[in-house]
Amino acid sequence: MILIISGTNRPNSITLKVAKLYQQLLETRGQASDILDLQDLPIDFASPSLYKSELYSQEFLELRKRVAEAQKMVFIVPEYNCSYPGVLKAFIDGLEYPEALRRKKGALVGLSTGSQGGNIALSHLTDVLHYCGLHVLAQKPRFPYIHKHMQEGQFTNPLYKQLLEEQIDELLVF
Amino acid sequence: MILIISGTNRPNSITLKVAKLYQQLLETRGQASDILDLQDLPIDFASPSLYKSELYSQEFLELRKRVAEAQKMVFIVPEYNCSYPGVLKAFIDGLEYPEALRRKKGALVGLSTGSQGGNIALSHLTDVLHYCGLHVLAQKPRFPYIHKHMQEGQFTNPLYKQLLEEQIDELLVF
Amino acid sequence: MILIISGTNRPNSITLKVAKLYQQLLETRGQASDILDLQDLPIDFASPSLYKSELYSQEFLELRKRVAEAQKMVFIVPEYNCSYPGVLKAFIDGLEYPEALRRKKGALVGLSTGSQGGNIALSHLTDVLHYCGLHVLAQKPRFPYIHKHMQEGQFTNPLYKQLLEEQIDELLVF
Amino acid sequence: MILIISGTNRPNSITLKVAKLYQQLLETRGQASDILDLQDLPIDFASPSLYKSELYSQEFLELRKRVAEAQKMVFIVPEYNCSYPGVLKAFIDGLEYPEALRRKKGALVGLSTGSQGGNIALSHLTDVLHYCGLHVLAQKPRFPYIHKHMQEGQFTNPLYKQLLEEQIDELLVF
Repeated sequence: MILIISGTNRPNSITLKVAKLYQQLLETRGQASDILDLQDLPIDFASPSLYKSELYSQEFLELRKRVAEAQKMVFIVPEYNCSYPGVLKAFIDGLEYPEALRRKKGALVGLSTGSQGGNIALSHLTDVLHYCGLHVLAQKPRFPYIHKHMQEGQFTNPLYKQLLEEQIDELLVF
Repeated sequence: MILIISGTNRPNSITLKVAKLYQQLLETRGQASDILDLQDLPIDFASPSLYKSELYSQEFLELRKRVAEAQKMVFIVPEYNCSYPGVLKAFIDGLEYPEALRRKKGALVGLSTGSQGGNIALSHLTDVLHYCGLHVLAQKPRFPYIHKHMQEGQFTNPLYKQLLEEQIDELLVF
Repeated sequence: MILIISGTNRPNSITLKVAKLYQQLLETRGQASDILDLQDLPIDFASPSLYKSELYSQEFLELRKRVAEAQKMVFIVPEYNCSYPGVLKAFIDGLEYPEALRRKKGALVGLSTGSQGGNIALSHLTDVLHYCGLHVLAQKPRFPYIHKHMQEGQFTNPLYKQLLEEQIDELLVF
Repeated sequence: MILIISGTNRPNSITLKVAKLYQQLLETRGQASDILDLQDLPIDFASPSLYKSELYSQEFLELRKRVAEAQKMVFIVPEYNCSYPGVLKAFIDGLEYPEALRRKKGALVGLSTGSQGGNIALSHLTDVLHYCGLHVLAQKPRFPYIHKHMQEGQFTNPLYKQLLEEQIDELLVF
């Protein structure tokens, strides 16, 4: 079971669409997966209670548990201000350290409506995940101008599809 | 007027203590300053409403306005998981782009209870702030094991004090 | 006098062409500049003698002196393997620390034949230059697929020209 | 066979001493290894010939071949100006892309005589190696003030020894 983390709580995000596409592509390879949608975060999760695990709500504990149980995960990361979304980092800040991620494996995907495709965002996230003990797949596809290359939940750009499939092939044997 | 941003909403943080110390040191140089404490963020600021400025609460708009009005700012940045706090980034994600930070100047200070002193955190934040158009002072003091080097709101380690004062001297002429 | 560092010793590089274009654009604004071409490095500069300034050749000392005398500088940085060229970093490793760069100001330009335009390269270089005490202009234009957007020493893409001119305007008042 | 790359060509480096210590520790676990010492680089390797593989000297080709044949590698990385040595990057710039590193695995070790222990250096190198397709072990021990914690080729600080041994244990099963 691979956990796919849709890395923003923005409503109607392309990020969630890419997470679903990732799930489909895994399914065609016979690989089960599960999507963790950051929209399911409680609206007050990033309040001061974030720093006291004994104050965590049941909803937040449920999301943490899903990360704790996963052995492989995929982060779909939209670029916000040249890095990952603050919300994604706040979620990671609320995970159990180091149990949540240590000795696990993960893959990163970058998205942007601009020209970068999130490559600095993925560099930053790699630093964070390495610190947390998660091994990151070297191959990190980036999808700039994502809004122009997706329709009805599918990539319209064949190169984008190929890059995603190549990553999946690598992830399955990582 | 320099705006000092205390970069976490964690209650009773050393970060806020360092922000207050920074303010004192500015004051002894005759420089007025103001502290923006991320504890004043509304508890639901990082919810989906973050992505719609028309949904911002009065409290959040007030904090944004203080950033908008500042021309120079200081970020006091505790290290969380080898980067800046997610909450700080979420706050930046909610600022007006690019008006909030463009062509302004800033200084960064890193803190940690571990051995790094936030140097990767400051590197990440520099990427974000540069993207937002804010010029970052080259000198970025780092304070590892901060909890061992502070007492009653003052640094007990003379080197720490010197590094902070050197930064302030540079910031005033930046 | 602004020093423009052409950041590779590769023969016939587009990097040097961009350095020359930068010089032209400065000239039209009445700003004198000088190009430091890393092709002028002695062929053995990165040998063990790099670590003993008393062994530096006259040629190398001459290049160092030009950096020492400059107060503002521009780095034209081609992307090699997702970072700056090793040769550029070896040159910086051979500068006098911290006198060579401290309290100076600089601007960075990124180039690539691929899709990134050197943004991670510029992030890395910013870390290095900040460490050396050089203030880096927030605005760092990137030019992906540079070989497709340049002809006879001029940009054929108007956006590229605009980005470069905007940086120059900022640099002149930085 | 694990290839240990001693990441500088500086004579009498602590880096090479750490490489030898790494080899010893591997040996006590029954793991064969080989040290690639960047001091063996031809003195003119970073000259313009770096960009034309048909001009490579026999010595340089020999070093490239050793990388090409390795499946797992360790990079011992001294911190130079807040990043990896330019010479190490120039060596990587001269490897065959992407055959040299793709789908291989590696571990990074950071050293410094200052307080950082090379953590930004390792972050930069991770970006480069990921781009080249090499999977990087999450655990990256850092050894600040290395000159104070080593004697006769051994760590005198038990924590340093423990961190290195923990990495080796992880690397052997990576």
